[in-house]
Amino acid sequence: MHNQFFTVDYQSATTRARLGTIATEHGLVRTPVFMPVGTQATVKTMSPRELEELGAEIILSNTYHLYLRPGHDLVAEAGGLHGFMGWNRPILTDSGGFQVFSLATLRKISEEGVEFRSHLDGSKHFISPEKSIQIQMDLGADIIMAFDECAPYPADRSYVKRSKDLTTRWAKRCKEAHNRSGQALFGIVQGGVYHDLRRESAEELIELDFPGYGIGGLSVGEPKELMYEVLEELIPVMPGHKPRYLMGVGSPDCLIEGVIRGVDMFDCVWPTRLARHGMAITRQGNLPVRDQPYSRDFRPLEEGCTCYTCQNFTRAYIRHLLKAKEVLGIRLTTIHNLAFLIRLMQDIRQAIREERLLEFRDEFMAEYGRGR
Amino acid sequence: MHNQFFTVDYQSATTRARLGTIATEHGLVRTPVFMPVGTQATVKTMSPRELEELGAEIILSNTYHLYLRPGHDLVAEAGGLHGFMGWNRPILTDSGGFQVFSLATLRKISEEGVEFRSHLDGSKHFISPEKSIQIQMDLGADIIMAFDECAPYPADRSYVKRSKDLTTRWAKRCKEAHNRSGQALFGIVQGGVYHDLRRESAEELIELDFPGYGIGGLSVGEPKELMYEVLEELIPVMPGHKPRYLMGVGSPDCLIEGVIRGVDMFDCVWPTRLARHGMAITRQGNLPVRDQPYSRDFRPLEEGCTCYTCQNFTRAYIRHLLKAKEVLGIRLTTIHNLAFLIRLMQDIRQAIREERLLEFRDEFMAEYGRGR
Repeated sequence: MHNQFFTVDYQSATTRARLGTIATEHGLVRTPVFMPVGTQATVKTMSPRELEELGAEIILSNTYHLYLRPGHDLVAEAGGLHGFMGWNRPILTDSGGFQVFSLATLRKISEEGVEFRSHLDGSKHFISPEKSIQIQMDLGADIIMAFDECAPYPADRSYVKRSKDLTTRWAKRCKEAHNRSGQALFGIVQGGVYHDLRRESAEELIELDFPGYGIGGLSVGEPKELMYEVLEELIPVMPGHKPRYLMGVGSPDCLIEGVIRGVDMFDCVWPTRLARHGMAITRQGNLPVRDQPYSRDFRPLEEGCTCYTCQNFTRAYIRHLLKAKEVLGIRLTTIHNLAFLIRLMQDIRQAIREERLLEFRDEFMAEYGRGR
Repeated sequence: MHNQFFTVDYQSATTRARLGTIATEHGLVRTPVFMPVGTQATVKTMSPRELEELGAEIILSNTYHLYLRPGHDLVAEAGGLHGFMGWNRPILTDSGGFQVFSLATLRKISEEGVEFRSHLDGSKHFISPEKSIQIQMDLGADIIMAFDECAPYPADRSYVKRSKDLTTRWAKRCKEAHNRSGQALFGIVQGGVYHDLRRESAEELIELDFPGYGIGGLSVGEPKELMYEVLEELIPVMPGHKPRYLMGVGSPDCLIEGVIRGVDMFDCVWPTRLARHGMAITRQGNLPVRDQPYSRDFRPLEEGCTCYTCQNFTRAYIRHLLKAKEVLGIRLTTIHNLAFLIRLMQDIRQAIREERLLEFRDEFMAEYGRGR
């Protein structure tokens, strides 16, 4: 039934939302999906078993980080990322493009690629589209991304156009360099908040016929309304039978609004990072459980939540652990935050199936928005 | 069958080792036992579920730390330590005596108790024997300890004698202050490395008729041989039908030698602390898995180990996590180290049952000692 890479199982009649299935050698992924981020071959504080129990069907890892440490050759020797980290479900790696631009220092961009210094030890490196693909073939994820330049926000039109054109030329080189079967290479649409550049980017990449498309360069500081407008203009241009992946986006409101506009895949460090800052995501808004008012609060992080944390521990205990800098405090908060987003995506899929996604959005935001 | 607090199920004919069972309201503990330490109401990095899966039957927590943070009144409100931390098996709390002497500053010891400043914020506090017992009744552990003065090593005989005498007077006050049913209060034998003082201490405490006895003030810097000699002199004086708990001791050689000499219970932060330093305990000695030679070692921490870590992850992966300062690295190493010691105690109990504990010691140490 799912012998093709992506199947649209149901197209909503009232919004651009759809239900789909991505089929990989490591199993199926039901879309729309949120992918927890495992930057350094581990979703921070979590074991693979815990991720499976939460129902995570795919995770993301980072080419830039793994290239620097422990090195893609070592990961390849370990049997690829799946074997190295003991995760047997699907994995997506990004190309390193975004990280080179956000983490590395002294970047020098040329037609050939990017020269930069490592954020770890200042050592000098060069990544080209071909190199990024080679690294990602060594890492062996199920889905990999083309090497792109991610323009900052704000940036003027001429810079964004040059950057988008370069990304297209690099995408072509990525495709030519890629020759690992059972691994899907996605192109990345750029173009900032300029609708015509976004459309151009999409059309140029569609010509290269990738099995899926990332939407990059959003959620980089622009107002959310601008992001939603880009999605509304861009997605009708994108092929209906291929997955659309909105990169680096993961707050509940953006997930719902993204799905309504036709996005199938998301990833974000937000839920795990929020946990490290002592914040829990709940339907009533984000809860600063690290704070004093929760020291004698013997309720779970979220009433009714079925995750391991909420079934067994109180806000008071988690607050104690966070104050005492005990690892279990971050672990328990991370478990809950990921459980929240994975369950939110399940609820979204259910709402699509029942053609009540817009009502779901309004109900959810009335409660969540009030709490923040 | 186990309606009394402690039952000796089997007394070895060839050594002082014995098999026993401690019966508490939260379940049975088979002795000899190693108790993982959960200083701040959490065994560092571990969840209660993971501890249960490792077969931990009892854990230890610290009165001094919990009194300072989050406070014993808060823990009592949460339903005691069991409810607070979500651990439903037996718990032992120490009295705070040792921590006041090892962590707090500006201590002033008087007949009444100890005045000290918190290691957290420098605030001034006073703990008396009665206060320690009140705190421990609030925490609600299954086994609690008398408030003692732990003399340093080396210390001259006259100091150790005065300290031992004070500990005996405090033990009497602890017993008078204690009135929580279902909770066993142990006395603590002191006396440093002076055999006659140890015997005096034991005899004085036996007169007070505690349900069990701690052996304190050992493993504080003295050579191991001196510790073993104290055990050989002391244990024949101690009652045979009550558990003997050698406090703060947990290295494999000391566990085996302690059991041979008649010890039933042990605790130590060593396995969890070792894990945080990137060291794994194996039968071949302690493995510095954080080090470069393990970066491409795709074997488990210990061949043949059945713990979650060894069944699923390699030294190379754990080394990567430790180098990248990822929490999962310490988690996985901690799981293995605790699994190692809990399995060692199972092996020791089996060896007692089969009257081959001395052979087990020799075989174990031939391999473990060589590796260090």
